[in-house]
Amino acid sequence: MTALQETPPTLTSTLDVERVLADLTLEEKASLLSGQDFWHTQAVERDGTVVVPAVMVTDGPHGLRKQEASADHLGLGGSVPATCFPTATALGSSWDPGLLRRVGEALGRETRAHDVAVLLGPGVNIKRSPLCGRNFEYVSEDPVVAGDLGAALVQGIQSQGVGTSLKHFAANNQEADRMRVSADVDERTLREIYLPAFERVVTQAQPWTVMCAYNKVNGVYASQHDWLLTSVLRDEWGFEGLVVSDWGAVRERVAGVAAGLDLEMPASGGRTDAEVVAAVRAGELDEAVVDRAARRVLHLVARSLPALTSTDARTVDVDAHHALAREAAAAGTVLLRNDPVDGSPLLPLAGDVAVVGELARTPRYQGAGSSQVKPTRLDDALTALRGAHGEVPFAPGYTVAEGPADERPAEALVAEAVEVARAAGTVVVFLGLPAAYESEGYDRDHMDLPADQVALLRAVAAANPRVVVVLSGGSVVSVSPWQDDVAAVVAGWLGGQAGGSGVVDVLTGAVNPSGKLTETIPLRLEDNPSFGSFPGELGHVRYGEGLLVGYRWYDARRAEVAYPFGHGLSYTTFTYGDVVAEVTGAGAQAGVRVRARITNTGARAGAEVVQVYVGDPESQVQRPVRELKAFAKVDLAPGANEVVTFDIDARDLSYWHPVLRRWVVEGGEFVVAVGASSRDLRGEVRVQVEGEDVTLPLHELSTFGEALAHPVVGGELRAALEANPVDPGLLSMATDMPLAVIADFGMAGLDRAGLEHLVEAAGAGR
Amino acid sequence: MTALQETPPTLTSTLDVERVLADLTLEEKASLLSGQDFWHTQAVERDGTVVVPAVMVTDGPHGLRKQEASADHLGLGGSVPATCFPTATALGSSWDPGLLRRVGEALGRETRAHDVAVLLGPGVNIKRSPLCGRNFEYVSEDPVVAGDLGAALVQGIQSQGVGTSLKHFAANNQEADRMRVSADVDERTLREIYLPAFERVVTQAQPWTVMCAYNKVNGVYASQHDWLLTSVLRDEWGFEGLVVSDWGAVRERVAGVAAGLDLEMPASGGRTDAEVVAAVRAGELDEAVVDRAARRVLHLVARSLPALTSTDARTVDVDAHHALAREAAAAGTVLLRNDPVDGSPLLPLAGDVAVVGELARTPRYQGAGSSQVKPTRLDDALTALRGAHGEVPFAPGYTVAEGPADERPAEALVAEAVEVARAAGTVVVFLGLPAAYESEGYDRDHMDLPADQVALLRAVAAANPRVVVVLSGGSVVSVSPWQDDVAAVVAGWLGGQAGGSGVVDVLTGAVNPSGKLTETIPLRLEDNPSFGSFPGELGHVRYGEGLLVGYRWYDARRAEVAYPFGHGLSYTTFTYGDVVAEVTGAGAQAGVRVRARITNTGARAGAEVVQVYVGDPESQVQRPVRELKAFAKVDLAPGANEVVTFDIDARDLSYWHPVLRRWVVEGGEFVVAVGASSRDLRGEVRVQVEGEDVTLPLHELSTFGEALAHPVVGGELRAALEANPVDPGLLSMATDMPLAVIADFGMAGLDRAGLEHLVEAAGAGR
Repeated sequence: MTALQETPPTLTSTLDVERVLADLTLEEKASLLSGQDFWHTQAVERDGTVVVPAVMVTDGPHGLRKQEASADHLGLGGSVPATCFPTATALGSSWDPGLLRRVGEALGRETRAHDVAVLLGPGVNIKRSPLCGRNFEYVSEDPVVAGDLGAALVQGIQSQGVGTSLKHFAANNQEADRMRVSADVDERTLREIYLPAFERVVTQAQPWTVMCAYNKVNGVYASQHDWLLTSVLRDEWGFEGLVVSDWGAVRERVAGVAAGLDLEMPASGGRTDAEVVAAVRAGELDEAVVDRAARRVLHLVARSLPALTSTDARTVDVDAHHALAREAAAAGTVLLRNDPVDGSPLLPLAGDVAVVGELARTPRYQGAGSSQVKPTRLDDALTALRGAHGEVPFAPGYTVAEGPADERPAEALVAEAVEVARAAGTVVVFLGLPAAYESEGYDRDHMDLPADQVALLRAVAAANPRVVVVLSGGSVVSVSPWQDDVAAVVAGWLGGQAGGSGVVDVLTGAVNPSGKLTETIPLRLEDNPSFGSFPGELGHVRYGEGLLVGYRWYDARRAEVAYPFGHGLSYTTFTYGDVVAEVTGAGAQAGVRVRARITNTGARAGAEVVQVYVGDPESQVQRPVRELKAFAKVDLAPGANEVVTFDIDARDLSYWHPVLRRWVVEGGEFVVAVGASSRDLRGEVRVQVEGEDVTLPLHELSTFGEALAHPVVGGELRAALEANPVDPGLLSMATDMPLAVIADFGMAGLDRAGLEHLVEAAGAGR
Repeated sequence: MTALQETPPTLTSTLDVERVLADLTLEEKASLLSGQDFWHTQAVERDGTVVVPAVMVTDGPHGLRKQEASADHLGLGGSVPATCFPTATALGSSWDPGLLRRVGEALGRETRAHDVAVLLGPGVNIKRSPLCGRNFEYVSEDPVVAGDLGAALVQGIQSQGVGTSLKHFAANNQEADRMRVSADVDERTLREIYLPAFERVVTQAQPWTVMCAYNKVNGVYASQHDWLLTSVLRDEWGFEGLVVSDWGAVRERVAGVAAGLDLEMPASGGRTDAEVVAAVRAGELDEAVVDRAARRVLHLVARSLPALTSTDARTVDVDAHHALAREAAAAGTVLLRNDPVDGSPLLPLAGDVAVVGELARTPRYQGAGSSQVKPTRLDDALTALRGAHGEVPFAPGYTVAEGPADERPAEALVAEAVEVARAAGTVVVFLGLPAAYESEGYDRDHMDLPADQVALLRAVAAANPRVVVVLSGGSVVSVSPWQDDVAAVVAGWLGGQAGGSGVVDVLTGAVNPSGKLTETIPLRLEDNPSFGSFPGELGHVRYGEGLLVGYRWYDARRAEVAYPFGHGLSYTTFTYGDVVAEVTGAGAQAGVRVRARITNTGARAGAEVVQVYVGDPESQVQRPVRELKAFAKVDLAPGANEVVTFDIDARDLSYWHPVLRRWVVEGGEFVVAVGASSRDLRGEVRVQVEGEDVTLPLHELSTFGEALAHPVVGGELRAALEANPVDPGLLSMATDMPLAVIADFGMAGLDRAGLEHLVEAAGAGR
């Protein structure tokens, strides 16, 4: 066991926030609202005495990127070694909150050991397009998966007395023009797709900080978006921590302070502090608003101090963390396909095996940008497989480059690989996205593997029908062009420093795969919902697909996909007993309890991710065909079974009503389905839910149809219509006519006076 | 020859607009701004003397719907007989401006003969979804086809001294909630898709009136949308006529007057006139604005008077008009498929023929709602075919109902039809949308034929491989579920009162088909671009697909379709000689002259619609793969050829720049393709066009990438970068960083002062 670092405490362990705040000058308070340097909050000293200490924050989210004092703070090198856990894509694919909590605890221990107060993560932005360059830092195309797993990670990290920063709030779903672009998206879509992952983390785990995004949301920079940072985040969700800017996200500091952006990072050299002071002096900003932000900074410092000043031994067991990273990498590996060849599947590996692909020897295990960690060690799959399997012939097949590469196949390398493949029982081909394809700061422009890798694969597959493909990459890649040439496909994602050994654990069967896709793999990029409105142009991106993100789109359009959301195979099999669903409440307390018995019917122990999808076929608004509302990962010995129970609550059944501007449960039939993926539903129950009253107030622009259906005055109007019949052709056109037009046209015996009476009666009757 | 009507003039033939206007009181002027009743403008009388006469307007657009005085003005019965020409869908499918002009002349003659001043049409809204209930009144999913054919119709009608009303302005692309819904659509999409058909008609044909739509556009009712009704329509396009409300579209009359809505229809009973007067008295509305609107009403009356008071014989040759309606119906018929059976195609019909389908005997020839005409006579296809072909056995196969119908197959009718089919050489099966499926006032909710018709077709096709399907309907229907069972498919649309004989002219070969689709037929409704965002909910519809309407979407997504935009077969064949394209100008005067020689290589005379598509593969904004920019219909004798020439102008090459807010030609390579449909391109030329300078002003939020590419300061910045190198990983992330962030981070040697200098230098250098 190697101790990473142990620093003796140098700070006093408490800070009386209110006492200190009351004692600070306006200038001192304003100074707290921006950083001291790239990584520290501002200290306040008086006559050489530290009144407020500075604390350090540092990049995450899947490992600590604490730069050494000598390093270029903007660069990516020069950070101290830390365990590089699997990226969010890989962690998320485990669908295992318990695992994420344990990874979080390890991250928290390393953070604490390095005297860092806040680890800047996790990211829970929705994967709107496979092309987003930072998808590897995000969890899912679905807010429930992203939110629940994000919350588990936050809970784990914060259990160690250090903080997190939930990012990037909000609607930061692309890298292209990320510092300026306005995400133009309607409120219902924000509420149902882009915000709820944040909401789940805030309400379940109270992260110490939330980091605002660079981009604008509907024309307003997130760094000065009062509705986002205050109305939604604090007033509605009850966020109690501090809001920090993404590094360089501040545009108008005073507007930001007013909107609820407490801390600007990094330092502004005092420029924006002076703006804040000037605004207060000019009466444009209430000093109480500055106090509010300063208090939150002080509170962050105060809650950091116990860990920073603790006298506990703060050692890190790097071996144990590496082992955990390996466990997590294996748990996040997704077995996409495992077709039989000559009667039996290729995986787990049996007989003699060869490996092809430079990525087996030179792994890609994390993405580029602020999240890049200097690992404590690094496993590669080739070494790991040789360790497990003995002699394994290898041919690189292609080269990997750090920067842009020539993608023409290297003929000699291909020929060598074909020779190796021909002689082997089974060939495992490692393919993946080169480093230059995905990074913070820019997006991919296609979702294909490099042409040289595909050419290699075709050549290998022509030489040997027993081919397993292992994919590296932080988001999905096209598999349709080549996957029918191979029998097995495994997605290893960017699996962190133990990704190589973790994926080999799955290949050999040391670990039975249990990962599931958190993102649909479409047949083609053009099938993706955001295609044609991603990444926008000249400052705007239209979220044209609305709610229909990811599987919601493919299901609505009944479109084929390569692999559906939630898909992932195992080496064992599971059966689902009858799904039982009982309604547990009504109206705003509506709920459904769902139960299903899962049985491991195979010969191996394994884990299944049981998924609950809910649909509402009849509604006054569009609803996705089905939406994930809950999931559970169940470990089962061969032959064992377990009843899993899910409580679907009112919020799960509700939608954001665009006119009432609140969540509503509209009564009627709901379809509750339980399955092994979004397209492998094993049982479905229809339940009748008693909803809330969602009748809109009647007014002169209510339609004739709305008035006829109105619970109070509908009867009266129907009687009037019977007494004053309307031509049937016209009547069918009248349903959508406002009452004012009906009255002006003198239809159904209505006139303006009658309309007034009707509106009054409707109001009185409620 | 039957004269329809001839009314002696009762009006004075001139009106001195300015003199009358100067003499009117405010109340009298305000009274002119709304109707006198449902169909008349307001007269002004003083002491029994008519100072301003009332003139009548009446529904169109494909025939006159002049209601008799006794009729319920809202109902659909009780109008005087008039020639029911093919609906806009059918007329549009001819792609023949000359034909539309002649139809327009006939419509104008009938309008004039009935003492009507303005025929309320044509409609040129874009067919965003196949489901829009009023699609039959609209021309195309493409603005060039809709605009050029709409202009021809307006020119024809107005050549007779009567007016038109171009409608529904704008973004009225659905019936659902049409009187309230806000079409939420970005400006570039409005400018490039939803407005240009109106623009073409206004600039080419100056319609006497434009009718505002019911709906809101981006939250503002079209009836009070200053930007639409004044800035765009008048200031930019130079519209000189009057803007009239759709019937009942006025919400806030005073706001409407101010925005440029001159005339409210129908009458408001004086209510809104009083509001206008009160607003002027209260100083909330400038009387000059009322004068402006009143002047336009007076001008409309004045320009109507010559025709209304003419002593010319105003007779209508109903036989000639019926013949023209038949010619137009045949010209708009589209031969979708004509596969050989036993070596030769089924069409034109040869040998013995049977007819199946009630629609052959009971035609659907127009849609429901305000456009519904009482025809002067009515042809059905069965009678027409018997007239041309002699003995033709017939079986109805299904029933048609006016209202909602039971769609279970009628077993006895099917059995009878199968018997008839089995005994026939060739079977022509007439299918189509029942009347209740499409109407003004509501939308379809699917695009399938009724289940009983499809079941009948399957039974008939099983009995006889030689099946021709003839479709009736105002917009496209799904053909994929059944079309592979049949050898030939003909779209006859809603062909007007001579639709039956017109389509039979095509079936028999009396007319060689030359119609082309103005609307893509998708494989499935779910493939349509608006699917999932049509028709919106609770007051808003998001135009999520942006520019990618119709074929633009299918081409961008490389999606299969059943039949592409522009498709239509002939009984002869055409070859396209090499396409020649020469650039004729640069910058804002850029242009391309395109030539191609078309040869009729078959044995029959025929007409081909030659289509020119332009694409711009490299641009700083998204551009559709290809867009129709010009077309020409060429009549060719067998063996004959003709060189067709098209002038593509700067506007055709340009896009609406969302930041500069003007049309710009961005230089570079353009692809000019000429073809027989959007997916049957026969020749393609790439040309280099010298564009305008579209460099945006440099400011502190310009990105590093934009600054590096800046013509004035790019060099300086590149030198600074060379002197202060940035880590390559960071550099690739820096491209999209604003200069302010680059300066704050101290990258590339830039600071805030250097940034100011850079922005200044860039501004000075331009």
